[in-house]
Amino acid sequence: MGFELGPNRYGKAGIHLATVVRGEERHEFSEREIEVRLEGDFDEVHTEGDNATVLPTDTMRSSAFALAFEHPEEALEAFALRYTSYLLDASPAANRAEAWMSERPWERVVIDGRPHPHAFRRGAFRWTTHVVRDREDVRLSGGLDELYLLKTTGSAFGGFLKDRYTILPETDDRILATELDARWRYVGPELDFAKEREACREALVRAFAHHDDSRSVQHTLWHMGTAVLGAAPNVEEVTLSMPNLHHVAVDLAYCGIHNDGRVFVVTDKPSGRIEGTVRRTEDVVSG
Amino acid sequence: MGFELGPNRYGKAGIHLATVVRGEERHEFSEREIEVRLEGDFDEVHTEGDNATVLPTDTMRSSAFALAFEHPEEALEAFALRYTSYLLDASPAANRAEAWMSERPWERVVIDGRPHPHAFRRGAFRWTTHVVRDREDVRLSGGLDELYLLKTTGSAFGGFLKDRYTILPETDDRILATELDARWRYVGPELDFAKEREACREALVRAFAHHDDSRSVQHTLWHMGTAVLGAAPNVEEVTLSMPNLHHVAVDLAYCGIHNDGRVFVVTDKPSGRIEGTVRRTEDVVSG
Amino acid sequence: MGFELGPNRYGKAGIHLATVVRGEERHEFSEREIEVRLEGDFDEVHTEGDNATVLPTDTMRSSAFALAFEHPEEALEAFALRYTSYLLDASPAANRAEAWMSERPWERVVIDGRPHPHAFRRGAFRWTTHVVRDREDVRLSGGLDELYLLKTTGSAFGGFLKDRYTILPETDDRILATELDARWRYVGPELDFAKEREACREALVRAFAHHDDSRSVQHTLWHMGTAVLGAAPNVEEVTLSMPNLHHVAVDLAYCGIHNDGRVFVVTDKPSGRIEGTVRRTEDVVSG
Amino acid sequence: MGFELGPNRYGKAGIHLATVVRGEERHEFSEREIEVRLEGDFDEVHTEGDNATVLPTDTMRSSAFALAFEHPEEALEAFALRYTSYLLDASPAANRAEAWMSERPWERVVIDGRPHPHAFRRGAFRWTTHVVRDREDVRLSGGLDELYLLKTTGSAFGGFLKDRYTILPETDDRILATELDARWRYVGPELDFAKEREACREALVRAFAHHDDSRSVQHTLWHMGTAVLGAAPNVEEVTLSMPNLHHVAVDLAYCGIHNDGRVFVVTDKPSGRIEGTVRRTEDVVSG
Repeated sequence: MGFELGPNRYGKAGIHLATVVRGEERHEFSEREIEVRLEGDFDEVHTEGDNATVLPTDTMRSSAFALAFEHPEEALEAFALRYTSYLLDASPAANRAEAWMSERPWERVVIDGRPHPHAFRRGAFRWTTHVVRDREDVRLSGGLDELYLLKTTGSAFGGFLKDRYTILPETDDRILATELDARWRYVGPELDFAKEREACREALVRAFAHHDDSRSVQHTLWHMGTAVLGAAPNVEEVTLSMPNLHHVAVDLAYCGIHNDGRVFVVTDKPSGRIEGTVRRTEDVVSG
Repeated sequence: MGFELGPNRYGKAGIHLATVVRGEERHEFSEREIEVRLEGDFDEVHTEGDNATVLPTDTMRSSAFALAFEHPEEALEAFALRYTSYLLDASPAANRAEAWMSERPWERVVIDGRPHPHAFRRGAFRWTTHVVRDREDVRLSGGLDELYLLKTTGSAFGGFLKDRYTILPETDDRILATELDARWRYVGPELDFAKEREACREALVRAFAHHDDSRSVQHTLWHMGTAVLGAAPNVEEVTLSMPNLHHVAVDLAYCGIHNDGRVFVVTDKPSGRIEGTVRRTEDVVSG
Repeated sequence: MGFELGPNRYGKAGIHLATVVRGEERHEFSEREIEVRLEGDFDEVHTEGDNATVLPTDTMRSSAFALAFEHPEEALEAFALRYTSYLLDASPAANRAEAWMSERPWERVVIDGRPHPHAFRRGAFRWTTHVVRDREDVRLSGGLDELYLLKTTGSAFGGFLKDRYTILPETDDRILATELDARWRYVGPELDFAKEREACREALVRAFAHHDDSRSVQHTLWHMGTAVLGAAPNVEEVTLSMPNLHHVAVDLAYCGIHNDGRVFVVTDKPSGRIEGTVRRTEDVVSG
Repeated sequence: MGFELGPNRYGKAGIHLATVVRGEERHEFSEREIEVRLEGDFDEVHTEGDNATVLPTDTMRSSAFALAFEHPEEALEAFALRYTSYLLDASPAANRAEAWMSERPWERVVIDGRPHPHAFRRGAFRWTTHVVRDREDVRLSGGLDELYLLKTTGSAFGGFLKDRYTILPETDDRILATELDARWRYVGPELDFAKEREACREALVRAFAHHDDSRSVQHTLWHMGTAVLGAAPNVEEVTLSMPNLHHVAVDLAYCGIHNDGRVFVVTDKPSGRIEGTVRRTEDVVSG
């Protein structure tokens, strides 16, 4: 019995670039972080130390900068498509390129009601995209993460399974808080991504806020996922990761206070982890 | 020769609490993180293991929750004043209490132009406060941190000192980016803090944006500091910490591109560190 | 067309527990962090808000503590097997339980050559384990992460593919540094895990150190992977993630110095990412 | 009334360098992170935008690399002395230079009982140093941080002050755990720093382990501080920061278990913060 190489891939993480487009009236600024992997026939790279087929990860870095120079106004999703396409062209031994990109929105500073032409402040979440491309096909997702949402009421959790280790009391009114990570899969590569992603974000936030009969994080996740699909016809499915950031009402009985949902300890760990995909059902056409 | 105890202090870090005020029309939500220290005559605690004078750090934690219950709507600065006052009362051996608090703004979710009554999203910076209180006196600062500001032009850096290790080229147009940490010292403890701090924040952002003949971070720091003092009469002095988050124009000569300020590598390390205080001059009254 | 629930799971992250076993001669201490997920038939939890089948994530937490009390000396891998087994029993709707656990080694403090009976210092890496269990089968891996390894010579990188964006020079002598994340899959659940994992760790470190004709990170990865399989007969395959933590020789020509591999800038970002699995080949039995 | 510049300083953070000394038998490797500030007469830099006196922070970076090339084997403390001396020479307007440096120990990989000549693994804590230098004088400290120490018994906490918010029970046996940050001040700049610092580290760990009648973190801090001064005659004073990393015995009464100090929840926040300096008393010479 001998050894063989199984699944393998290589690439670069932490490519961090910014672009400025200097218009006459105002500047556009974007900041992006890029991670990438190539997979393919790289067995002899490992077993023989033969680098002839290896596109260096440093070249992945330098090519990202060059492509960003040439296409500084491209949406994150479109740029990720272009970048993975370039990498497959540049690496004949590869059969698959995968990229993750994020872009933190920098909002224009507003002075006296007027957006400033070249001064920005960093926003509170990140746009993301994910591309998996092989020689025949490409799969493209948009997304966002680090979006913290919280509601002070409209959330319950009861009627759950109990065993000997269950000590959690049921509640019909709790704080619901999450750091949302959403990924939505686009139907195709030719879309107005800035518009699509904003529609998704808006649907997510609206559904979270409006879902006032939440019976669990899962329940709200479903509500938010269907809202995205309802609002964004070019999205096939959406996957939401919603950690449950527990806010626990403090027991103040020690000093004679009945804490009626006024003061909470914010816990970092542990946290619940709720993840799920909502997708469109297949059309069933009957004759 | 023997040994003695020098300066010492003790306290708690990472007290993380949230409060909800349940109004008829809408809820108010705040999330605060608290750190505290006591100093005083605690020699025998160390040298003898005598805890008779020690207010446990756990009591510092539990008292913060109790006080937050009783005063959930108090501004961060006022709450820090109250908390340090309580601690000095509770600890006869202490002669000084110091607290740092931060509050991340949670903004109401806006749906169809209307702020939601009980749904929030977390903002992108933090309000801070710092109190140093002894038995006679108290010193109070407000502040903010984690406020990322950037401008794509209007910033130069040249005419500096050069020696054999100087390789930085002069530039008359660069990206200026910082993660602002500002602390402003209030003239007294009886102020409308929400209004004061917003005036400071607004002055800082406006001055950063408008200072288009910046010759250095220091130059912009001075401009921002004087703007705070001009806008906030109840502020005595302001201390700004402005790391210089370098955005370095990438040399694309390797592929025949002249990068005319369009693509930059965003560096995390190293970063410049610029810190300074701007204060009011004493009135000189001549007879 | 309507919507349906796709893949989904839920669980807990950040369960952080410690155990002490108080022997007559000395104490044993362990510190573990646990993350877990359940998958199964939870459609109505999402779509209807019906929690009848939901084992709360809080119960996942409390049961981990109870099981740790009952089996405080169990190896990390064995405890992960037990824990996932408990969870499937406790959750009839689930058909799959997955757990990740880590344990940071706390080494005994050594005083005058003697290990202390109850004083410990924290080590520099973490042991890990990963279990995927369904109603019929279980898959178990051990591993380690946060193990930083570096060699100052014996590593080259040349002969690679070049295109118009390639600027990396070839080198026949560079620093090779990585933060190793290794996962090895065990042949079964009944092993002396403490011994198995130590054999894997020792093989990894030895192979990294001895591989002095490294032609790439991939080349060393292969060498390390085969070393694990050679040393640990109860390991079926091993997956290594080896970020390339670049140490770049600084160009000191600006001050007349030829830097002959003596001073390097340590970069955090970007970093190469090299990942691969080495496994045993199938026995081919010919008649 | 006008404005004036108050205290100000500038410098660089995150200078991260490594050096290799290539001996015949074996290589020496070190990795260091450097932060630095200059203070002085920089008023016009701020108020006028006049950079004539400004040594760029980029030069601080490049000079650190050049000095490291020339003195790659110098101890961390000696290198910090040299670096601050260079900076004051290079910056006539400065009257004070301050530097913080850290060095993570990379230990030789040991194979079959033999230290490897050029393969290393990263250790679990960091050495630190701090220099404050003006035109006449210099103050030098060594130190270490990120050293996690824990003992499973020999630590009590009782007899403390109680008020209406005190709920912490007294205990005569608890886990004591800390992430030690120690700084010791040297009597002068001409010492065998590698030997001095190792004596301090050894004294700290030994005293922590042996102090089995600990009545508080403060009590153990004093014991450790005096141990350093006893073991290291060239140290004038030592300042210890010892967060109390709480391990709370879990109440398992919910499932009928009496948890006799066997299972603990490890908490990240909040944590106690205990800080203190131990120093030598002045000799009193009576006639």
